[in-house]
Amino acid sequence: MEQYPIPIGNLIEQLSKLPGIGRKTAQRLAFYILDMEDIEVEKLSKSIVNAKEKIRLCSICCNLTDDDPCYICKDTNRDKTTICVVEGPKDIIAMEKSKEYKGEYHVLHGVISPMDNVGPKDIKVKELLDRLTDGVVQEIILATNPTVEGEATAIYLSKLVKPLGIKVTRIAHGIPVGGDLEYFDEVTITKAMENRREI
Amino acid sequence: MEQYPIPIGNLIEQLSKLPGIGRKTAQRLAFYILDMEDIEVEKLSKSIVNAKEKIRLCSICCNLTDDDPCYICKDTNRDKTTICVVEGPKDIIAMEKSKEYKGEYHVLHGVISPMDNVGPKDIKVKELLDRLTDGVVQEIILATNPTVEGEATAIYLSKLVKPLGIKVTRIAHGIPVGGDLEYFDEVTITKAMENRREI
Repeated sequence: MEQYPIPIGNLIEQLSKLPGIGRKTAQRLAFYILDMEDIEVEKLSKSIVNAKEKIRLCSICCNLTDDDPCYICKDTNRDKTTICVVEGPKDIIAMEKSKEYKGEYHVLHGVISPMDNVGPKDIKVKELLDRLTDGVVQEIILATNPTVEGEATAIYLSKLVKPLGIKVTRIAHGIPVGGDLEYFDEVTITKAMENRREI
Repeated sequence: MEQYPIPIGNLIEQLSKLPGIGRKTAQRLAFYILDMEDIEVEKLSKSIVNAKEKIRLCSICCNLTDDDPCYICKDTNRDKTTICVVEGPKDIIAMEKSKEYKGEYHVLHGVISPMDNVGPKDIKVKELLDRLTDGVVQEIILATNPTVEGEATAIYLSKLVKPLGIKVTRIAHGIPVGGDLEYFDEVTITKAMENRREI
């Protein structure tokens, strides 16, 4: 191991715990931080503590928020009859960018994955079902990712929700816009063929 | 811009100021930090503040240290008659890994670069010359990088140091060990040919 002064060694160790940050990158970042203005370093360190302290889950949709309920659940202009179910908070950011969807969300914080010991009780399934008891919601859109676990979670949820008399839909999977047919795998192409529509 | 809760937005903004961290990576890191244990987040934020607070320059060699003089300058087993001049603290780490060199170091904290408005006064040249007054030092090894600025700085320093009757040497540049001749640029090959030795 390289011989660093202890505070630098500590900083490198902490930084290299972050995802995608190897030892070399952590070293580069550490030396960069040492070169930064005092005020900038304070801002960085405070923003870390602050985010961790202030951010919690929305008591309705389980999205990350600093304000409960979150800005989407609080918005009276949004369609309360539709809930789009996503795996994580980042998916909401992606969805909102398209400016297409005007309903509400529900964040599962994971997918059912027996291999990783994640069952229905480890993700926010109960919280979703609790939202369906008052008869307001008429459609659930399952927008989990098209992975094995995402599909399994979607099927599991549809089996729970359908008996409540609520419409359950799944977002379409196919060739992305701008994509070139020859570069996609056979599963994507199969999906795209299955989901073809008359024009 | 994506609509994040303010503390997350702040964290992403601060992280994306770091070198090599774009917006997407900053977003991934921010969500990862929100998922970390409280204690780990505190360790991370403290290590940043701590490093910045405790690390200063060694009053002798200008290396980064939490203890003045630094562990190398303090080490009485090292050869006080030789100083290896490097551009930055990271170069010392690389040198020390080879376990070959037993002398002292001097960190310039940059190279002379008129294009970037960096003159001899902006790097630790005066501090180097101050170390040469007591007649102990007999050799200066210039280990700045083989870039235009690194070469210019080496030439500038040799012109200052030679008149003091001190031997000035430059580390060798050539094909690195394990390197394949056909993949190196003509400047490296020219250097390797110039520096050839009889065997």
